[in-house]
Amino acid sequence: MDAFFKQAIDGLREAGNYRVFCDLERHSGAFPKATRYRNDGSTHDVTVWCSNDYLGMGQHPAVTAAMKTAIDRCGAGAGGTRNISGTNHYHVELERELADLHGKEAALIFTSGYVSNWAALGTLASKIPGVIVYSDELNHASMIEGIRHSRCEKRVFKHNSPEDLERLIAADDPARPKLIAFESVYSMDGDIAPIADFCDIADRYGAMTYLDEVHAVGLYGPRGGGIAEREGLMDRLTVIEGTLGKAFGVMGGYIAASATLCDFVRSFASGFIFTTALPPALAAGAIASIKHLKQSEFERRQQRRNVEKLRAMLDARGIPHLENPSHIVPVMVKNAAKCKWLSDLLLDSYGIYVQPINYPTVPVGTERLRITPSPLHTQADLDHLVGALNDLWSQCALSRAVA
Amino acid sequence: MDAFFKQAIDGLREAGNYRVFCDLERHSGAFPKATRYRNDGSTHDVTVWCSNDYLGMGQHPAVTAAMKTAIDRCGAGAGGTRNISGTNHYHVELERELADLHGKEAALIFTSGYVSNWAALGTLASKIPGVIVYSDELNHASMIEGIRHSRCEKRVFKHNSPEDLERLIAADDPARPKLIAFESVYSMDGDIAPIADFCDIADRYGAMTYLDEVHAVGLYGPRGGGIAEREGLMDRLTVIEGTLGKAFGVMGGYIAASATLCDFVRSFASGFIFTTALPPALAAGAIASIKHLKQSEFERRQQRRNVEKLRAMLDARGIPHLENPSHIVPVMVKNAAKCKWLSDLLLDSYGIYVQPINYPTVPVGTERLRITPSPLHTQADLDHLVGALNDLWSQCALSRAVA
Ligand SMILES: Cc1ncc(COP(=O)(O)O)c(C=O)c1O
Ligand SMILES: Cc1ncc(COP(=O)(O)O)c(C=O)c1O
Repeated sequence: MDAFFKQAIDGLREAGNYRVFCDLERHSGAFPKATRYRNDGSTHDVTVWCSNDYLGMGQHPAVTAAMKTAIDRCGAGAGGTRNISGTNHYHVELERELADLHGKEAALIFTSGYVSNWAALGTLASKIPGVIVYSDELNHASMIEGIRHSRCEKRVFKHNSPEDLERLIAADDPARPKLIAFESVYSMDGDIAPIADFCDIADRYGAMTYLDEVHAVGLYGPRGGGIAEREGLMDRLTVIEGTLGKAFGVMGGYIAASATLCDFVRSFASGFIFTTALPPALAAGAIASIKHLKQSEFERRQQRRNVEKLRAMLDARGIPHLENPSHIVPVMVKNAAKCKWLSDLLLDSYGIYVQPINYPTVPVGTERLRITPSPLHTQADLDHLVGALNDLWSQCALSRAVA
Repeated sequence: MDAFFKQAIDGLREAGNYRVFCDLERHSGAFPKATRYRNDGSTHDVTVWCSNDYLGMGQHPAVTAAMKTAIDRCGAGAGGTRNISGTNHYHVELERELADLHGKEAALIFTSGYVSNWAALGTLASKIPGVIVYSDELNHASMIEGIRHSRCEKRVFKHNSPEDLERLIAADDPARPKLIAFESVYSMDGDIAPIADFCDIADRYGAMTYLDEVHAVGLYGPRGGGIAEREGLMDRLTVIEGTLGKAFGVMGGYIAASATLCDFVRSFASGFIFTTALPPALAAGAIASIKHLKQSEFERRQQRRNVEKLRAMLDARGIPHLENPSHIVPVMVKNAAKCKWLSDLLLDSYGIYVQPINYPTVPVGTERLRITPSPLHTQADLDHLVGALNDLWSQCALSRAVA
């Protein structure tokens, strides 16, 4: 068998898609700085430019203090599944906080955003008799696996296309239950779904809607409720799904929906039931983070400023990046080997860490450096990054964008 | 749709299988004591008798201190997936620690034991061409879902039966790759698999073996490596899977295996790749817990003593419990409504928390109170528990075991 495994891994290596993890130690209190461990055990300092701790909440004193207090009070882990001794009062409070964030009756937490999508979609799509799921073609792996798991009938619609969705949905039996599953901010291109249009279609055809706001919660809307909050659409969505591991800076996932729907998933989802609950400290940290971002615009404003600055600086040097209405800045390299090579040089020669994003995360030919400016990056950090990219763009004769 | 959800939930209620979570706050430093929140917001003190934090490591000072240090150093969350900025040096160290624990070349951590089973089995069984998986009929939901996910050919063998396994495996094409998946300690009955016999069969038919030691790691073997360590069998298993959320007291899951197999799963498992990594603090806490249990017999010895004491005290009063060679004491009630009623009375009148275990976790007619004595329960705790059970057994004329 080892020969088979080796061959599969060699295949990745040859295609330039073998993943080498960057071994880091982030410095709390000094984000985005981190120590990187090289293979030989030596270390150097780097600036992280590709974290999904988008707002640096992972080092916010309110968050870290809440976690340490919860450890002092309740210990390390939850000690059981939610049903068998593992429900901690912090979980109950966190579910209330999340329901409030999204204006829903209830919320249900999972061990990760991945598990929340897989378990919630898997359960809804397998248990609702005759349901058809309409899934955006660029939906995240966790949604795809959940839908696949359910073995329901599924239609894949063109990315962010209400026309294609309506074409498919109109062709189906009006009597069958329907569920439309999509994301708000797509993490690799940073584009945003036409949520209102999808909700209109859902209304016309009596469909439920399932929105993944993993890359939007904490970041958009006056209280960090996501794109649906910003656009006043939260009440039109059947299920809003999110993560505690990106802008909220901790770990865990959730759905927010009607009390009955949450109770249904709680009662039937294998991936919710048969697993140890989140440690109380993670729930406590997430509560602190959500509460803070409900009333503070500071981090979001500062992040937007840095995103705008970076885009302008890249434009001034003709470094090509994908325009989009979000906080994600994809610098397009369009070649797997070059992308990896750029990333290695940035890391080794400039102390700048941006992971190369290659296939299968993005399509072949759209390889990129996905840059996520945070509120904590300084002007000096920006200058150093753009200077380094400019050097490398010249050195290796990468094409520049025309202004 | 809400009507459909309600009806499904009502069905559970009528069968006595609707789950009501007990809202707890465990008291670090005073385990197994906890505060219970009632629905009306009032609280009372309880003793927890059903935690899977089997050794109380969730409050061990080495574990909680390591977590707080990691929060101070690295912050709350990992800030990304393992590939995109989320690998923290604590993860690298934890994987080394786990490989060493099981005498394997490598280990790979996941966000939970559930995800480790689902993702590892799902990936191996779907990617190895023509593989047949042989699965114990009582395997955990996470293994079943992983195997189901892979859509491989599957044979289910009678629980812990080498004869049935061999009957099935002998009937299959000798040329096809084969994988035998089973657990060591089964959590509901506390019985233990004949691992050596399964390994013998694997050798005879050239099959791989996949052993879930979730309810054994930390608890058995001179270094807490599980039943396979205790029986000197670790090197005969292809994959050993475990959790960081039970005896180790934190959260997370892992596999330990050859470096090539781990690299294969690392490279192809969607449930490993597309999810935020474990917070550094959880990895740090797990490292401290594993290291401690590698060199300390104290907790294991004390736990065994309490398990023996409880069994003897139950026997003296004729309270029926399932004999088994592990640390789990299932007090058999054999009726869903009675089981729930006993559990409610214990909680409300005696401050004793033991969750009733009903269908679908166990078969109908085998409903039970699953008691897990820890090293931290005192003689007074034992006296109070057995006294309460004795009262209730008399009050409701439950049948006694004959000595
Ligand atoms: C769109 C989307 N949904 C869900 C997830 C999974 O969330 P988590 O990282 O909390 O598992 C991710 C990324 O990790 C994602 O990009
Ligand atoms: C046999 C078995 N395997 C795996 C798991 C899942 O482990 P975790 O709780 O870490 O998700 C459990 C229970 O939760 C289990 O009982």
